[in-house]
Formats: sequence, structure tokens, C-alpha cells
Amino acid sequence: MAVYTPVSDAELEAFLDQYDIGAPIALKGIAEGVENTNFYLETTAGRFILTLFERRVAVSELPYFIQLKQHLAARGFSCPRPIAARDGTALRSLSGRPAVIVTFLDGLSPRAPTAAQCDALGAGLAQLHSAAADFSLQRPNTLGLAAWQRLFAGRAEAADALQPGLGALIARDLVAVAERWPRLTSLPRGTIHADLFPDNAFFLGDAFSGVIDFYFACTDLLAYDLAISLNAWAFDDQQDAAVYNADKGGRLIAAYETVRPLSPAERAALPVLAHGAALRFFMTRLADWTATPAGALVRPKNPLEYAHRLVFHRGAATPEDYGA
Amino acid sequence: MAVYTPVSDAELEAFLDQYDIGAPIALKGIAEGVENTNFYLETTAGRFILTLFERRVAVSELPYFIQLKQHLAARGFSCPRPIAARDGTALRSLSGRPAVIVTFLDGLSPRAPTAAQCDALGAGLAQLHSAAADFSLQRPNTLGLAAWQRLFAGRAEAADALQPGLGALIARDLVAVAERWPRLTSLPRGTIHADLFPDNAFFLGDAFSGVIDFYFACTDLLAYDLAISLNAWAFDDQQDAAVYNADKGGRLIAAYETVRPLSPAERAALPVLAHGAALRFFMTRLADWTATPAGALVRPKNPLEYAHRLVFHRGAATPEDYGA
Repeated sequence: MAVYTPVSDAELEAFLDQYDIGAPIALKGIAEGVENTNFYLETTAGRFILTLFERRVAVSELPYFIQLKQHLAARGFSCPRPIAARDGTALRSLSGRPAVIVTFLDGLSPRAPTAAQCDALGAGLAQLHSAAADFSLQRPNTLGLAAWQRLFAGRAEAADALQPGLGALIARDLVAVAERWPRLTSLPRGTIHADLFPDNAFFLGDAFSGVIDFYFACTDLLAYDLAISLNAWAFDDQQDAAVYNADKGGRLIAAYETVRPLSPAERAALPVLAHGAALRFFMTRLADWTATPAGALVRPKNPLEYAHRLVFHRGAATPEDYGA
Repeated sequence: MAVYTPVSDAELEAFLDQYDIGAPIALKGIAEGVENTNFYLETTAGRFILTLFERRVAVSELPYFIQLKQHLAARGFSCPRPIAARDGTALRSLSGRPAVIVTFLDGLSPRAPTAAQCDALGAGLAQLHSAAADFSLQRPNTLGLAAWQRLFAGRAEAADALQPGLGALIARDLVAVAERWPRLTSLPRGTIHADLFPDNAFFLGDAFSGVIDFYFACTDLLAYDLAISLNAWAFDDQQDAAVYNADKGGRLIAAYETVRPLSPAERAALPVLAHGAALRFFMTRLADWTATPAGALVRPKNPLEYAHRLVFHRGAATPEDYGA
């Protein structure tokens, strides 16, 4: 994403005067994140990311995200750590926007994750869940089952325009997933990332080096986060299809279980959770797709990638179908 | 500018295998430069900028720019130094684009340059001219007087649309400047930056730390580069006017002369050179302005900033009017 809100050298210097992280050496607007303005910030004390939150982010939710990252970093989980200013608070204001400075995280996001990276990611996701186990704040998942139904209302024709007959298939998916969806009390709940795509995971070679972008994090079923990751990491996208890669998926699940073993009920729920996770990303992409005028600055992600995944999920019945 | 051409982790690793600068640690698309894709690149050996040249740049001219930066860096002038790969060449190919890795330059660009920064910039510009004195390659200035006349052809009405009567004033400026413009052989010539705006100069506090973006560099009158800098650094922009700041301008010229004193002929030519420099930026901005559809991705710079500077130049007759 382009830089939305510029920050002048004088504004930056005045802002950094509130911190104990030295004097500025470099500031570069970076194309990271879709919702916010992000800068690579270097000071005499080290490397950081400076984020200015733009209008789509709810300011009231920022303390949750900041405290979550502080909690995870304090537990040794590798993520951007929000830096408190001298007065003890990390969430501040710059150029008329809420702003935060976090530590810089080394690593590259994989374009096409290797099987070894899926291994590492599975273990990393379980480490995230374990590190967050004693995080006390809660945030409901605003993009859960009810939201999918709401997002689909009035968009069946838009789905048909993407692929004839897709609207009816999605309507059936919604019913099938709702009928089998686990009750919140039936499976382990906790803090989930909820958007752990390859874009948001860093590696040095095949070694997992951390996670960024916690702005969908919420309190939900832990196994649902694993199911999101299966959708994001274990499909091979082709022209008009997505092929589930049971080797990658199986390795991701197995690696997760080396840190946090799944209960039998979680394991049994994996197919419906994975089916629902694909619906969640299909629905938000469909909404963005229909809301974005042709020729707009931001090109929305194609919902069909998730329609293709849904084909697999409709036919998958057991955890073994996912390589578990 | 947003990232135009993406580079995957695998492409980057294969690309860096050609160099002796270690393994990649981080790659972030940065919003710098208007014509190219730029990345902040960190490796186990240090910090760099990776540039991919997009279509607007003439590939045949890239060796000039690369060799100029190598020459300046070898003379101790602070600018991005192109890194040669193991085979000795710095200009390579990545993701189907000409590509180069340069060293990372510390510093911040000033939004509103201070008088002390104008001092430092003046000396820095003269150091650039001195360091380039024995650079053997030549490149004609493709945005000189003939180009201004060509750019203005058919655009008088566009100028009038910006400000009633502006078209006729600009036509008179072109004649007045052409009549007084120094012959190329009459003043010292050499390699000039030709675009040394605050965006392209870095400072640490008030100390000059280097220059970037040499893609307008060419062979022309050295004093014309100083005249461009007076336009870029020594005006205070107001709502409907630009006020020449003779303190800043005078300091910039005086600081330049501490490194490379002006000849009497150069000094006498300053008013017409500054007048012409304002025409050059007015003309290219006017062309971009009229060529850019409303609501386009890139918002062009307002030509009126330079129409406002022209008001001053029309009334200025002597070097003293510029603080010299």
C-alpha cells in the first residue's frame, strides 16, 4: 500500500522526543499492510516500524492489538513489540493519526511456501497460541459465522457473475457449515491470529522468524486458526482450481501438534472448520470485489481462489482428508 | 510511489546469489522515487536499496547514472553506491526489469529546510560538482531551453486555465530567457544533478548526509544547478505566492562558494539561470498536469508553485537580488 499520511522530518523528531529510542537516521514509507501507513524507521538505537492508523481501523480496538503483541513478545514469541514512550504508553498520536512504534522483525514472506516452511509455520502457530494462553483481554470474532451470512446477503448474483451457479453452492455451504459448526464451549478457545497467511509470516530460509499484522486477532476456537492456515498454506493454486496438498497440510498439522496436541474433538472438527474458514475469506473477498470500482487504486483479491478451495472442502469428510 | 514490480523471496535469493553481500534478512517495498520500484533490502552484510527500473526509464541511459554514482562514491561524495556483482557489473536483471543494488544512505529529507540546511546543501552541491569534475561520461540535458519551448507548444490555454493570462506571461518568459541565456562555452560546464530538491537531499539534523536520485543528471552549466537549487530551497511557498528568502538563498550561494567560487560571469548569469530553472519545472509540471486524468493514482505537482516563482524572477535583475 502506498503511504497515506506523510510525516515530516520535524514532526518525526518531535515525536521521537517522547521516546528513549535515540535520534532518527532514516524514515521510508513502506508498502506493507493494506489499512495503514507504515514506515521503516531507523534511529541511533535500532530499527523499527512506525505505523499510523488510517480511518478503517477502529481506534477503540487498538489497545487490544497493542497489548496482545506486548504480551506475546514478553512470552518470547517473535512478533513486532510495541515500544512504550517515556510516559509508559505505546499508543500515541502523530500527524493527526493514532500511531505506534514497534520493533523491526527480520525475515521474508514466502511467495510459494515450501513443505519445510509449512512445518515451521505449524509449530509457530501453536507457539503463538501457547504464548497467548494467559492473555487476559478478549475480542469477539467480528468475522465469524454470523458475519458470513450477513456478508452474503444480496451477493448471490455477484457470485454467479464470477462463476455461473456459484451463488447457490455458497448458500448451501453456509447451511452445511452452520449445521455442523462446533459450539464455542465444546472446543478449546483462546486468542487466535485469524489471518496467518504467508504475507504475515516471516522466515529466514526455511526457519520461522515471526508473525506480523495482528489486526484480525480475536478470541475464538484455536483449531479454527489452524483451519485458516490450512487454507492459506496447503493449497496449490492453479488456473481454475485449487489442489489440496495433503503433504503440506499434514506436516503443518503434525508440527502444530508437537507444541500443542489437538484433542479428539478438535481433530474431528477440522473439516468443518476448514470449510468455514474458506467461506470466511470467500465472503470478505466477494464483498471487497463488489465494492471496488473497476480501475480503482487497490486491486481486490480474487474471491475465486476461495471458491476453488470450497470445491475441495465440500468433498472432504474426515481429518484424514486433510492429512491429519 | 507504490511497488510496481513484486519480487518474491525465491527470486531475491537467486538474485543475491550473484553477489557477495550475504543472505537476505528483509525486503520491504518503499514509497521512494516516482519512476521505479524501490525496496529496502537488508542482508547479513548490511543495508541496501534494490531498484527495479520501470518502463519510463531509458535502459540505454542507466550505465551513465550508475557510473556517475560509482564515480562520486569513489571520490568520497555521499550518494548511493551501486554494488557490482561477482562478475563486476552492477546493472543486472530481476523480475524482467533492469535492476541495481545500491548502498543505503542514512538521513532524512527536510519538509521545510532550515537556513542551516541551506548552508549545508550549498556546500554539498559544490562538493558534488567537484567530485564529478573528472567524470568522463557526458549526457546532454534533455530538459534544457529547447525542451521548454517544445513542452509549451499547445499548452498556453492550459496555463490560462490555471491562472488567467498566465499563457502570455510564460510565452514572454521563454523569449526573455532565450535572449539572455549564456552560451554553453561561456561558463564552466560539468556534471550536474539537475533535480536537487529537498526530497533528494538527506540530512542528519542540520548536517548534510548525501544526495539521491540522479536520474536527471546531465552535462550542463554548473551554475544552472545552483540556480535550480535556489528555486527548490530558497522560496517560502504561501497560498497564492512564493516569497524569495534572500537569507536562505544568500547562504546557499555563499556556502557553495566556500567549496567552488563562482566566476564573475557565472555570478552575473545567476538571474537568468534561476529564471530558466523556474521555467523548466513549470513546463514539466504543466505537461504532467495536463496529461494526468482527474482522479488518477499519482497526483501531479501543481505548476502554480513555479508560476509563483516566475513572478519573482521577472522582477529580479542582479545577483544581489538573489542574495549573492
